[in-house]
Amino acid sequence: MLDPGRVKEIAESLESAAPVDTGSFLEKYHPAEIAAAIDQIHDDDKILKAFHKLGVDIGSEVLAHLDDHARTLILEKLPTEKLGDMIEEMDSDDAADVLTDVSEERAEDILHEVSDEVEQEVSRLMEFEEDTAGHLMQTELVSVPEDYTVAETIDKIRVMSEEVGDLHNIFVVDERNRLRGTLSLRKLIISQPSARMKDLMDDQPLMYVTADADQEHVAALFKKYDLVSLPVVDKDMTLLGRIVVDDIVDVLEEEADEDLMMMVGAHDEALVQTHSAVAMARYRLPWLGSSLLGGFITGALIWQFKMTISEALALTAFIPVVMGISGNVGAQSSALVVRGVATGRIGRGALRRYFIKELKVGLFLGVTCGIVAGIAAYLWQGAPVYGLVVGLSIFFSIELAALMGSAIPLFFKWANIDPAIAGGPIVLALNDISGLFIFFAIATLLITYLR
Amino acid sequence: MLDPGRVKEIAESLESAAPVDTGSFLEKYHPAEIAAAIDQIHDDDKILKAFHKLGVDIGSEVLAHLDDHARTLILEKLPTEKLGDMIEEMDSDDAADVLTDVSEERAEDILHEVSDEVEQEVSRLMEFEEDTAGHLMQTELVSVPEDYTVAETIDKIRVMSEEVGDLHNIFVVDERNRLRGTLSLRKLIISQPSARMKDLMDDQPLMYVTADADQEHVAALFKKYDLVSLPVVDKDMTLLGRIVVDDIVDVLEEEADEDLMMMVGAHDEALVQTHSAVAMARYRLPWLGSSLLGGFITGALIWQFKMTISEALALTAFIPVVMGISGNVGAQSSALVVRGVATGRIGRGALRRYFIKELKVGLFLGVTCGIVAGIAAYLWQGAPVYGLVVGLSIFFSIELAALMGSAIPLFFKWANIDPAIAGGPIVLALNDISGLFIFFAIATLLITYLR
Repeated sequence: MLDPGRVKEIAESLESAAPVDTGSFLEKYHPAEIAAAIDQIHDDDKILKAFHKLGVDIGSEVLAHLDDHARTLILEKLPTEKLGDMIEEMDSDDAADVLTDVSEERAEDILHEVSDEVEQEVSRLMEFEEDTAGHLMQTELVSVPEDYTVAETIDKIRVMSEEVGDLHNIFVVDERNRLRGTLSLRKLIISQPSARMKDLMDDQPLMYVTADADQEHVAALFKKYDLVSLPVVDKDMTLLGRIVVDDIVDVLEEEADEDLMMMVGAHDEALVQTHSAVAMARYRLPWLGSSLLGGFITGALIWQFKMTISEALALTAFIPVVMGISGNVGAQSSALVVRGVATGRIGRGALRRYFIKELKVGLFLGVTCGIVAGIAAYLWQGAPVYGLVVGLSIFFSIELAALMGSAIPLFFKWANIDPAIAGGPIVLALNDISGLFIFFAIATLLITYLR
Repeated sequence: MLDPGRVKEIAESLESAAPVDTGSFLEKYHPAEIAAAIDQIHDDDKILKAFHKLGVDIGSEVLAHLDDHARTLILEKLPTEKLGDMIEEMDSDDAADVLTDVSEERAEDILHEVSDEVEQEVSRLMEFEEDTAGHLMQTELVSVPEDYTVAETIDKIRVMSEEVGDLHNIFVVDERNRLRGTLSLRKLIISQPSARMKDLMDDQPLMYVTADADQEHVAALFKKYDLVSLPVVDKDMTLLGRIVVDDIVDVLEEEADEDLMMMVGAHDEALVQTHSAVAMARYRLPWLGSSLLGGFITGALIWQFKMTISEALALTAFIPVVMGISGNVGAQSSALVVRGVATGRIGRGALRRYFIKELKVGLFLGVTCGIVAGIAAYLWQGAPVYGLVVGLSIFFSIELAALMGSAIPLFFKWANIDPAIAGGPIVLALNDISGLFIFFAIATLLITYLR
């Protein structure tokens, strides 16, 4: 992704004894590249030394791009004074983000070193819950009154140019700082200097979110309406901050990672490469525990039935077929619900309709796979009863897997809990158990009855 | 996501006999909302009627937001002349995107109705392969020579205001239209009217991609460098177009969906809600086939071993434990590789290091789960030999699952094939088979030897 040659070049100049020419360093390299170079260093002392060489100006740009390990290390070990200087320079949302990585006391110590204004802003942002619009927003923005002219607005942008980084929209507010409208820079640039904001504001419905909005909802708005920035308000419409699209890009990836990891059964922290092997194993173990437990319960079920049908030993050969297929259908069904909900394709109003459709899909899948597997079983074992047992049980276990695979995450969604939690191992374990129960129940019935 | 009340309101006014006030409709509703209203209509004739009411201006804004079904229907059924008028109004990338949904002849017919200039642009975009930067880019952009002043540039923006929608950066080119630099609107707005482009261009390294760059790579650049728009060039640095961040948001979601669906075994088309139940089932069936086959192979394996160890019937009760745990570890390992590669966290240079780490993780997981399962098996069956068999085979099958789960996708990555293909059912089926083989092999050995 990042040019490995350039990253290596940066790492070498940071690890060498010679000082870095901080004046030209940022012209030559992007903060993300410098961060990648520091992340590659394996020795903690060397990381600190390399970061120290960057000075406050570059350091404040690089800090937010670093991986967890280097970032936490730097925040723990560098003098609070120097860290305070960097926090002062950073965007408020990055500063709040970085400081949530360390203990509360350490964060307070660092915030003691910054100006009162920045301290207030950053502390306020840190109070918003993670995964909300308030946590994502930055307070750096340009807002002007409705009667401002284009020329006055441009003056204000010029004055705030240092403080506000990327700028895409101007927010228009009333005398009590309540959001009235937005205006793109493009429109500002082509308008007469004497034109007033209230006449230029977009005439489409005003888009905004409240600070407590869920980040998945915010991301869906950006996606649906092709937004670049979005104002955040409180319940009285007072303008609190703005969310910029690059943070949304991170949210989308985070949510996708979380969904996938939940589905296969692993904490999404396991995706981060910097953990040690033991730490990685720890992030993955809990789900394996549920898998083990599910396995033993399923095993106990087999043991139970084995007694009654010990003459039908051949049945055990079909255990993997039944387990495999019902597991797969259940995983498909719950993945579709989890992603459909996460991306907004399945809205709250459509849960019931979706569920009924999923049952129909399960019916088709069950009939097709049941017939194929039944014929295969008959040909393999040579006895029609096996074909019947396998075919019927595959049919029922697929339909049940589709039902549970979608119903469980839909229930979570309905109860306002992230459906991804239910997506993976729970559904899988339940499918294994119910699939085999159906299989052995049908086998016992048919064999007893047909004999 | 979209306010259901508003969407219903739109649907009602579109389905009523009264004509729509096209003048105020777009002021009141966002094209995405109008599209959502049309997507909710179940009858094809009514969809066409509703869309027809929108007229060319609104229709061209709505078309790109529609779901596949309504979009394809409209493109197939509406007169080419009207469609041509809409294509003329659309952004070139949206137009190209929409037209790839219909047959080549139909697309050509529609393109005959547009101006030569638009026809050329759109046909050229349609030639780029899907999933490349060329396919994502739009040709609408503002580029100016290096010696242009700020005032001249603003004039050019004013002239092009109709054609170019969202504008975030100005591209600076030389006399042969080769990209020399970029400039943000923010910088343009605060600079002196007489300042020249060559003095204002960003002094950071110039960011761009070539038209054949993979869209995953492009998305990673946007993410890493917090971009809003990115110029696309040919191999001679000639400026071809620009990619805007809202298309990247779609790409990220598309890739995440694709990865997840591949992992659980379903075509990512199955995520789209508009398909009928039969069509949905068809998107999911192929993976179930591989699951069935894998199950039968595993079953045959059990059948094989059953002959030799029919006295150790209790072993069958452990089949679900071994299958469950090795399946879970394999799914975790391959999900980590698939997402790590997709998001750029695992670069091409780090494949070997990652693999070795994964083996270590497997070791920890194997030892932990092996001991737990071994003790549980001993307590359950009361015989130490079962504890030993289960513990050892869980250990080996976990390590093997971690090995195959990461090695197979890493091999695909190394061979430049999307690793997601290998992530799901292939790895799962191989894990089931190898896990049970290890289990029965160890059981046969130990039981024969210890007796």
